[in-house]
Amino acid sequence: MKCLIIAAGKGSRLKQKGESKPLLPVLGIPLIERVIRTALETGVEEFYVVTGYHGDRVGDFLNRLAERIDIQITSLVNDEWEKGNGLSVLKARGVLQEPFLLLMADHLFDPSLARALTELRLPPGEMALGVDRDIRNSLIDMQDVTRVNSKDGNIVEIGKGLAVFNGFDTGVFLCSPAIFQALEQSIEKSGDTTLSGAVRVLAAEGRAKEIPVSGFWLDVDHPADLKRAEQALLDRLRDKPNDGPISRYLNRPVSMLFSRNLAKLDVTPNQISLFSFLVSLAAAGLFALGGYLALILGGVLAQLASIMDGSDGEVARLKYQSSDFGGWFDAVLDRYADAFLLFGLTWHLLVKEISGLVLFIGFMAIIGSFMLSYTADKYDNLMRKRIKARLRMGRDVRMFLIFLGAVTNLVLPTLVLIAVVMNVETLRRVVIAHD
Amino acid sequence: MKCLIIAAGKGSRLKQKGESKPLLPVLGIPLIERVIRTALETGVEEFYVVTGYHGDRVGDFLNRLAERIDIQITSLVNDEWEKGNGLSVLKARGVLQEPFLLLMADHLFDPSLARALTELRLPPGEMALGVDRDIRNSLIDMQDVTRVNSKDGNIVEIGKGLAVFNGFDTGVFLCSPAIFQALEQSIEKSGDTTLSGAVRVLAAEGRAKEIPVSGFWLDVDHPADLKRAEQALLDRLRDKPNDGPISRYLNRPVSMLFSRNLAKLDVTPNQISLFSFLVSLAAAGLFALGGYLALILGGVLAQLASIMDGSDGEVARLKYQSSDFGGWFDAVLDRYADAFLLFGLTWHLLVKEISGLVLFIGFMAIIGSFMLSYTADKYDNLMRKRIKARLRMGRDVRMFLIFLGAVTNLVLPTLVLIAVVMNVETLRRVVIAHD
Repeated sequence: MKCLIIAAGKGSRLKQKGESKPLLPVLGIPLIERVIRTALETGVEEFYVVTGYHGDRVGDFLNRLAERIDIQITSLVNDEWEKGNGLSVLKARGVLQEPFLLLMADHLFDPSLARALTELRLPPGEMALGVDRDIRNSLIDMQDVTRVNSKDGNIVEIGKGLAVFNGFDTGVFLCSPAIFQALEQSIEKSGDTTLSGAVRVLAAEGRAKEIPVSGFWLDVDHPADLKRAEQALLDRLRDKPNDGPISRYLNRPVSMLFSRNLAKLDVTPNQISLFSFLVSLAAAGLFALGGYLALILGGVLAQLASIMDGSDGEVARLKYQSSDFGGWFDAVLDRYADAFLLFGLTWHLLVKEISGLVLFIGFMAIIGSFMLSYTADKYDNLMRKRIKARLRMGRDVRMFLIFLGAVTNLVLPTLVLIAVVMNVETLRRVVIAHD
Repeated sequence: MKCLIIAAGKGSRLKQKGESKPLLPVLGIPLIERVIRTALETGVEEFYVVTGYHGDRVGDFLNRLAERIDIQITSLVNDEWEKGNGLSVLKARGVLQEPFLLLMADHLFDPSLARALTELRLPPGEMALGVDRDIRNSLIDMQDVTRVNSKDGNIVEIGKGLAVFNGFDTGVFLCSPAIFQALEQSIEKSGDTTLSGAVRVLAAEGRAKEIPVSGFWLDVDHPADLKRAEQALLDRLRDKPNDGPISRYLNRPVSMLFSRNLAKLDVTPNQISLFSFLVSLAAAGLFALGGYLALILGGVLAQLASIMDGSDGEVARLKYQSSDFGGWFDAVLDRYADAFLLFGLTWHLLVKEISGLVLFIGFMAIIGSFMLSYTADKYDNLMRKRIKARLRMGRDVRMFLIFLGAVTNLVLPTLVLIAVVMNVETLRRVVIAHD
């Protein structure tokens, strides 16, 4: 499917200093890139972007983006960008002869929302608009939103000032080339150069369909919208199904704070993973040093590393930098970090007093931690089905126990607890998998 | 596809004591079960088996087998089993109205061989026979084999005594129901009640096709054939692509000896895995005991465990007992065994002299071993593509080093070697996976 994106406007209400609106970054990624990345997830393969204000800069960025992520983007220039946005749509008349997805560079949305449109079979001569029926949607600027009144799946009226309405224009359209004729008709008849004008022309003939959609979408017009967009993107990080309790309620809120700021910097997720690992190593070193002060400091560093360990994945998701290697690299570093931390704690005890029992307990804690990760990862798909995670004893809990054990100076009980729980849980998995 | 198996003969040349020939075990699995299991691998879904001599016993076994592995087997009885085998084929006349695979209960063969036939599109009224063109095939009993003379893909003549021939009847047929008419014609015209007689009838009309096949097949008629069958099945275990050098050249020959005998007992692969693990634990205990004699004994036990560790998979393959759980269970036990052996060696050194350096080296050896397994298993498919196994340092090599280190009393150098090689290799994998 092809996709047309309107990126011609100035965005003067955003008061960005000299930057074109489509290039305005939200959590480190320009608006237009976010729109393109989201469209890619719905199966779009070819992009046409109409530029206007600061068209060269936007065009340059799109050329680099196309090369960077290996997609096809064609820039179309609209010099009359100060008039209605319908004129931008008309620029694509020559290149779009089949149904296409029509998006706005300043409308962020969830891929599921656009998929409701791309999966439609659009009858010739019609257009469809994704309409948000949730008229209490808190992300909507009621002053500025385009309102829609529809009946039985047909758009009856569309416009900013509608008194009677039952939904909002999300800015996500599925168009047939009929939209071009409708635009010309609208301009000719009433001088209306907006896209809404064309929708009205089609609506009058029952050719403008309303597709109710749900999920996140946001029109970025004001500085407050940028903050809202950031928050909405961050909020989506929360629903990670594999999160343990410590991750979910303790680490995630803090790591999201980190991630919000890290995303705006030129830091890669792998660099964050590596940094978190180095902090763990430092914590292990402090443990091994001996003494209560070093132990407390090490415990705090270990928990900090555990929190930062969430940020790599968060930043990756926020900035479209997730990769198989990244996940694997993080897992490898985590295993080393786990082992060094437990070895550090064992050493801490051995410095005080040489004891074969302590050595054995430390060994069993290290082995148990490893086995828990190993049994979880090996044959992932097969075993995950069988091993229901009744006992939630993941890395987040383990690291938190290390932190607690260190600051309370209860190192040996902590090692015993980890050794017993980890190995018993591994045994439980073997028994369950066997049945 | 349906499959007809002739299992009516007595097999008097095998001199088995009272046992029916189809029930004769080869490496613990009756001939008829091996034929059925192999046919299953080629896509057969429904079986008809003609029984004769000791038909009740064979029928009972098939009922239990059908239940055990959840397949459909229908027994058909041929009371005239002492006459030609064509009469057995005729028993299926009422139930087989479409093309079917025809097999002999005493002919073992490789699935690939039968697949050459099941993948054929057989024209109506024809039959096809898998013919082995390798007339120097060492597994063939030249006195007894049915010879085939064919030309341009058509069978010209078939029979045991042929002077002119260019291939052998493998006993694997793809038949259309025309075989039943051909059998009746053969019996009527010449009193020939054998399957070969029917093939001759069809051949005379150009309706018997020759399909050249290659790969293992064996007609089990004499006691010597049983030995040959065992050897051929064992030989196929050799080509395991993941075997390291120690596995391939040292462990595999010995473990195959174990497996040959274990397969005949009522021992499951998981029991073998567990026993190998217990032997490793005993070895680790001997290491920890201290003293050179215990060290040597432990080293020998460790190597023995490593060898036995090959047998679980071999027996599983020989007896169709491979399972996802089995592979996973074996891997989990291996990781524990690795860790305990290295911990035992470390303890062995610490008993002599307490040393932080030794402790650290032992720790690094344990971690490194784990990481090597972890990085190999995690995201198996993705990483295996990228991480070409240039350095073959698998478990087989690791265990052999432990053995060598123990018997030569060079424990510390062994731990250092394992610690360095394992961790460097892990690092190498990270670097390679990153590129």
